[in-house]
Amino acid sequence: MPIRPICWRQPAIDHPSTEPGAAAVTAGILIIGNEILSGRTQDTNVNTIARQLGQWGIQVREVRVVPDLEAQIIEGLDALRQRYRYVFTTGGIGPTHDDITAVCVAKAFGVPLIEHPDIASIIRRREAPPEIMANRLLMARVPEGARLIDNPTGGPQGFAIDNVHVMAGIPRVMQAMLSTLDGKLESGPIVRSRSVTVFLGESAIAAELGRVQDEHPELDLGSYPFLREGRYGTTLVVRGTDSAALDIAADKIRAFIVAAGETPFDEDR
Amino acid sequence: MPIRPICWRQPAIDHPSTEPGAAAVTAGILIIGNEILSGRTQDTNVNTIARQLGQWGIQVREVRVVPDLEAQIIEGLDALRQRYRYVFTTGGIGPTHDDITAVCVAKAFGVPLIEHPDIASIIRRREAPPEIMANRLLMARVPEGARLIDNPTGGPQGFAIDNVHVMAGIPRVMQAMLSTLDGKLESGPIVRSRSVTVFLGESAIAAELGRVQDEHPELDLGSYPFLREGRYGTTLVVRGTDSAALDIAADKIRAFIVAAGETPFDEDR
Repeated sequence: MPIRPICWRQPAIDHPSTEPGAAAVTAGILIIGNEILSGRTQDTNVNTIARQLGQWGIQVREVRVVPDLEAQIIEGLDALRQRYRYVFTTGGIGPTHDDITAVCVAKAFGVPLIEHPDIASIIRRREAPPEIMANRLLMARVPEGARLIDNPTGGPQGFAIDNVHVMAGIPRVMQAMLSTLDGKLESGPIVRSRSVTVFLGESAIAAELGRVQDEHPELDLGSYPFLREGRYGTTLVVRGTDSAALDIAADKIRAFIVAAGETPFDEDR
Repeated sequence: MPIRPICWRQPAIDHPSTEPGAAAVTAGILIIGNEILSGRTQDTNVNTIARQLGQWGIQVREVRVVPDLEAQIIEGLDALRQRYRYVFTTGGIGPTHDDITAVCVAKAFGVPLIEHPDIASIIRRREAPPEIMANRLLMARVPEGARLIDNPTGGPQGFAIDNVHVMAGIPRVMQAMLSTLDGKLESGPIVRSRSVTVFLGESAIAAELGRVQDEHPELDLGSYPFLREGRYGTTLVVRGTDSAALDIAADKIRAFIVAAGETPFDEDR
């Protein structure tokens, strides 16, 4: 059979995920760490940050994971900080030779690295032999002009400069630092969602779902297939900032599922 | 206390992670999906792909996560495919309006989208009403010239064009597709690792670790702090392609830990 060109349905892409008039506040995440790229460590920080920012009305639009290499860290930082309102980085702020995040951020902003007295003071609280203290104090290095991000776990603080927020890589420490930013960041409309799950394959609902998407360009409709106990199902997720429109779209989805003789579940898979 | 500029130790960065002469085979990963960026779904595909490629002698050097938006998918594809030997994408190859990966890959390569007869034939095996079949057949769309990636789960295949490999987003299906590439990809030297764990903070071992890194520029030494049962510890990971050098470096690490009066564990945290 010859391979023939086909006309494909123009997909409804690049539709806005916020209502017109309400400016979205956006963010990029930069994960710095060879251990993620090698597969040694399963990253969980992206998920934690994305959920938290979502609750604060900030939408994550891009994630990059880069190795502990200066050129790649600076390139990723520059790309994300110029494109999004906020950038959040995790990893590379410890005292060992592979911890180069602060150096890279300073270079990206073209400012010198300084020892921040407030971080140094936290570090000096715990006594140590001179060489160990000298290494610990490497964690007090921040780009000149940086603001501190508190660290409720009691360790050295993170820092922010301009729109870039630099946090620890250990998930518990990262989460503690992130929590201190509550109320300190610009907030856009909060993207909320409705989920409807059905034991139907995606193809059985694709056409109707596309119609609902066309009727609601202000919403973002996603379709997520899954396999559970040997049965294929699909979770349909409607996302947007207008709760009334979300309810209407979710009702339309439930209606076409019922019309197809199936049962919709309000369950998020 | 005034903020004073400091001289920081020049970090040993951009050191090669493979021995001189042995060309590394590199890869980038592009995760396509709003559900990862919103935090609805915890990605595990990066980790699975990175580990599998590592075993095949392919090193993941960068990951990007982008939304279901044409411009961002194409930009990510172009950046990664020009920079790395291989690119692996997951997500966006289903039959719904938000599945635009095949369209984007075709546009990135400037070729038309065709219906591939071998995928269509798999899809037609299962009967369905015409409208549902028409939607299913959207999954048979591939860029002209694409090779197929088998799908041992029995569903529609993935595809590859040039150095870009396009796989499903569902982890079990992605993993099945990836497994079929065994032996079909170019292979570089395999990066192996040795791990030594100690209940010491990073600062206590930073100087000695930096010395071992300086003595072994052919290796990549990482330091990963952790918190377990209220105690801080550090796992030191040596990575590289020369097993003899790895053993020597790991022995040096154990030796400086013992000299510090602590016990090294050969345990990977």
